[in-house]
Amino acid sequence: MEGGIKAPAPARGGLSPIQRLIERLHETFRGVTAGAVASYIPELAMVAPDQLGIAIATVDGHVYETGASRATFTIQSISKPVLYGLALASCGREAVLARIGVEPSGEAFNAIAFDDTHNRPFNAMVNTGAIVATAMVPGRNAGERFARILDAHRALVGRTVEIDEAVYRSEAATGHRNRTIAYLERNAGMLTGDVEEDLDLYFRQCAIQVSAVDLAVMGASFANGGLNPITNERALDAAHVRDVLSVMTSCGMYDYAGEWELRVGLPAKSGVGGGIVAVLPGQLGIGVFSPRLDEHGNSHNGLRICEELAQRLDLHMLAHRGPARPALRRRYLGSEVRSKRVRRLAARRMLDDLGRRIAVYELQGDLFFANTERVLRAALADETATYFVFDASRVASLDRVAAALLRDLADALGQAGRSPIFASAADAVREAIGLSDIAFASDLDEALERCEDSVLGDAGIAPVDGTPPVPLDKFELLRDFDADEVAVLSDRLTRRTYPAGEVLILDGADADTLYFIEDGAVDVRIARSDGPGYTRLGTVDPGNVVGELALLGGAQRTAQVVAAEPVSAHELSAKAFAALSRSHPAIAGKLLIAIGRSLAGRLRRANIEIGALAR
Amino acid sequence: MEGGIKAPAPARGGLSPIQRLIERLHETFRGVTAGAVASYIPELAMVAPDQLGIAIATVDGHVYETGASRATFTIQSISKPVLYGLALASCGREAVLARIGVEPSGEAFNAIAFDDTHNRPFNAMVNTGAIVATAMVPGRNAGERFARILDAHRALVGRTVEIDEAVYRSEAATGHRNRTIAYLERNAGMLTGDVEEDLDLYFRQCAIQVSAVDLAVMGASFANGGLNPITNERALDAAHVRDVLSVMTSCGMYDYAGEWELRVGLPAKSGVGGGIVAVLPGQLGIGVFSPRLDEHGNSHNGLRICEELAQRLDLHMLAHRGPARPALRRRYLGSEVRSKRVRRLAARRMLDDLGRRIAVYELQGDLFFANTERVLRAALADETATYFVFDASRVASLDRVAAALLRDLADALGQAGRSPIFASAADAVREAIGLSDIAFASDLDEALERCEDSVLGDAGIAPVDGTPPVPLDKFELLRDFDADEVAVLSDRLTRRTYPAGEVLILDGADADTLYFIEDGAVDVRIARSDGPGYTRLGTVDPGNVVGELALLGGAQRTAQVVAAEPVSAHELSAKAFAALSRSHPAIAGKLLIAIGRSLAGRLRRANIEIGALAR
Repeated sequence: MEGGIKAPAPARGGLSPIQRLIERLHETFRGVTAGAVASYIPELAMVAPDQLGIAIATVDGHVYETGASRATFTIQSISKPVLYGLALASCGREAVLARIGVEPSGEAFNAIAFDDTHNRPFNAMVNTGAIVATAMVPGRNAGERFARILDAHRALVGRTVEIDEAVYRSEAATGHRNRTIAYLERNAGMLTGDVEEDLDLYFRQCAIQVSAVDLAVMGASFANGGLNPITNERALDAAHVRDVLSVMTSCGMYDYAGEWELRVGLPAKSGVGGGIVAVLPGQLGIGVFSPRLDEHGNSHNGLRICEELAQRLDLHMLAHRGPARPALRRRYLGSEVRSKRVRRLAARRMLDDLGRRIAVYELQGDLFFANTERVLRAALADETATYFVFDASRVASLDRVAAALLRDLADALGQAGRSPIFASAADAVREAIGLSDIAFASDLDEALERCEDSVLGDAGIAPVDGTPPVPLDKFELLRDFDADEVAVLSDRLTRRTYPAGEVLILDGADADTLYFIEDGAVDVRIARSDGPGYTRLGTVDPGNVVGELALLGGAQRTAQVVAAEPVSAHELSAKAFAALSRSHPAIAGKLLIAIGRSLAGRLRRANIEIGALAR
Repeated sequence: MEGGIKAPAPARGGLSPIQRLIERLHETFRGVTAGAVASYIPELAMVAPDQLGIAIATVDGHVYETGASRATFTIQSISKPVLYGLALASCGREAVLARIGVEPSGEAFNAIAFDDTHNRPFNAMVNTGAIVATAMVPGRNAGERFARILDAHRALVGRTVEIDEAVYRSEAATGHRNRTIAYLERNAGMLTGDVEEDLDLYFRQCAIQVSAVDLAVMGASFANGGLNPITNERALDAAHVRDVLSVMTSCGMYDYAGEWELRVGLPAKSGVGGGIVAVLPGQLGIGVFSPRLDEHGNSHNGLRICEELAQRLDLHMLAHRGPARPALRRRYLGSEVRSKRVRRLAARRMLDDLGRRIAVYELQGDLFFANTERVLRAALADETATYFVFDASRVASLDRVAAALLRDLADALGQAGRSPIFASAADAVREAIGLSDIAFASDLDEALERCEDSVLGDAGIAPVDGTPPVPLDKFELLRDFDADEVAVLSDRLTRRTYPAGEVLILDGADADTLYFIEDGAVDVRIARSDGPGYTRLGTVDPGNVVGELALLGGAQRTAQVVAAEPVSAHELSAKAFAALSRSHPAIAGKLLIAIGRSLAGRLRRANIEIGALAR
């Protein structure tokens, strides 16, 4: 076998119960000899009848397999959904629908019956329709057309496939019934080209060799909206996959379709080579191989194993799995979680209360109608918030409906005088929602900061820019200091200015200075653990201090502090503090108390934030 | 209208885009007069043909509606899925399958055709099958049986329903074709009881009056696994709903089934009264009413409105909506998030490192095979953890497969020498997973604490119980104090003991004492905001201090501290500290520095926890 997936290593925690289940099923069914190998093609009758392979592939690319899961056999009718998908991709939906119906025929796979009203085969899952689908594969010649067919199979199963020449020749030599069908179709105008070339391509594709694992991966590719989860290659557009699965649902299992839908409930297709592929959309693909067929032409053991798997694992696509997965992960308020901007005292106090007017809606996963509708409903009924942050950092995808709903939501909020902003939206999400008139912030923190600015603006608190420097006696840290005490402290301070970008505190250096930020703002940041560069922890506005550790025993700095804009700071060195402690122990003690109280306050806020995030 | 749901109030944020969409569709289609009102029942031909009602009900009980959404009409064939569900609930699946098939007949709804191989009607969505389903409704007499039928409808639509007497009498008087069917079935042994009584029940149920809203709610009840989302009443078991939806999928739209599956892709049922119900499992129900019928007997406008809704909102059940919703919300380590037990210094240091051996798997939502399989896979491949906490507080439900997988996972981890524990599992979750041999903790904190105890035990650190009291010079806070300094401080301390349950610090009181916990442990707790009682914030072990605020400016206490067991503590009053500041300012300053450093360390840990929880 070339390429393809590797057999999985055993998990360290012991054998997976899913692996154990398929092994038990293999054990149970490998001795079951009911049914008979297909015999209408001489070469098919020669297949070793006792082979049994079982495989399950998940949409995140994990494969469980057991038995003859890598043994190859001819794909036969399981190429029909592939060809239908290829016809859809090549010619478009309407062209295909005009030439091939989508109604179950209620007859056997090789029946010679047509939808006379529309002069077309009933559907693409029976021979009549599959021959027309084959005829729709474009190409300059037979070779190019067949290369396309092989490639469609390769993309879905994730490895290069070849045909079994002997089966192909046997089928081509004895396929009188299919010749009859093709010439009838040619006569009725359903086929218009070279009948022998179309028939030859049809016979060839039926002889493509696949394994149970290949079918499971094909199923997982369908389950994954056409993206092969092993190779990450797009094998088919999601819209075409939907049509393929629809037709598999109504027509995939011939005249057993209704009972299969009831008992298994998975879009599926079987072939007289003994294979069955079954698909649980969004979840997994199943591939089974066991050559003996039942009276409907389905693999006897394969069908029963699918039934057992569906029943034991509750795979039925209509089984109740709870309401649509929520798109809203959590909601919290700007009074609980703050931006990383440490604001001036008056602003901080204000936000303790008015932060309620900022609501963060944390979105998650794949967004579609039903789960996005709930986000809309919640946000439109939100009575307390004026500023809405939609945190899209955990959004995996959104379909066009979800995108339109979010755009509509933003419009509706805007019209009601409220302000929505989307944070951390990936480019695809951003483009889908639409760029014009909608506010985007690069991350949650930026969004929070902008909303906080707006809340403060609404309350008449001026933005940071253009405000005068904060005099020492207005620092919150010194709120219990009288004028004399401030003067004493002031004598120990050195005033310094830093241009934007200059480092005040270097990480790793000894902590030896406390900074009273008088004007400008500083960024606090830490070295990234996953590479070069820094992560910003926060921004500190004038009226606040940084570097308290200098007075608390002088360990090494763990964070870097950089001037975010031109900064003016009063600096208290550890040495100056030691001198202060000797000359004015009461004032030094008062400063330590103030620092302790400030740390206690920040710890209390951190605990509020933990409470909000742990929800 | 009695009972039922109320018309929704307009959302404060403006008109919902979903509401706008159905209003636009109403506008578009209300003038469309294609098709003709059913005329084979004289009374039906008298219906006002231009009525048009549209409703969508979500599985969380919200209803969008427009037009004649409350106008009633006779349910006709839409009672068939209800009767099929009732037969399943009354007689069990196998008994019903024996008497009614599940294959599409490929013929019109009133065809006189049977599955001769099994001597039964093809399926329950055509008249032949629905009459047999009606015959299977048990009861001592016709009145009791019909009460049961009405009740099945009531439970699904969420209000008491009645029949239209005129339509019933008209249908009973002219239903010769259905009489023919019933007597043929009686003759073939498919019916065994009183044919006239069964027929009368059949005619009556066809005349039940419903509205578009009723159908939407019925659809939402099906979508919600049989639980009516408006009334919260269980109308049908989930397993029976699955069977009903399966048969609706293959047989609900007569000979339009394949095209409906392709274009709309929702299990659905139409009636000649002009109604259509469509179901998107797990998400919503649609109800449409428009009396003119097309050539298949489906509501002409209703069908097109369903197509428009499905297309515009991407409702097709096989549309790709991303991989199965994740059951694993996040994973973090015991080194990032700690239990609320503030341990002795050596233990804390140890957990900073060895906490990695505890992994918390936060589960969420509805658990079923595909998403639980991933949790298994992740946990079985987890190389770093020895202790596994599965936090089930956000699990909404789990099916029997997910329960079995989690039980298997716990077994596999146990066999590999690892320890799983489930935290915050609701009773139902706990019972489903099974009680024996599996560790459960009432909440995450208890689970974390138990895992921490185990990690410390593995590292040879004795559990708290039975360890000697911590001498003052071993307190982390005093680690920089020499023996003389400890002695000076010690002179200012008062030793006190508290029996278990006694309050050390009362919330609201002045902060006037710092406690060095020498022996025993204290609980820190705050008053609940949502009622009486307290929430525990944490437990503090010996060797730690509580009440630092006393030395930091003496505000009021915000938390309560209670002896969790008999406690012995050295107490430093604010007054004693003031005296110390005068007599030994350097020692007092050192103590303040130590408190500052301790708070800074706790703040750093809090920020690590915020980082882990914000993931």
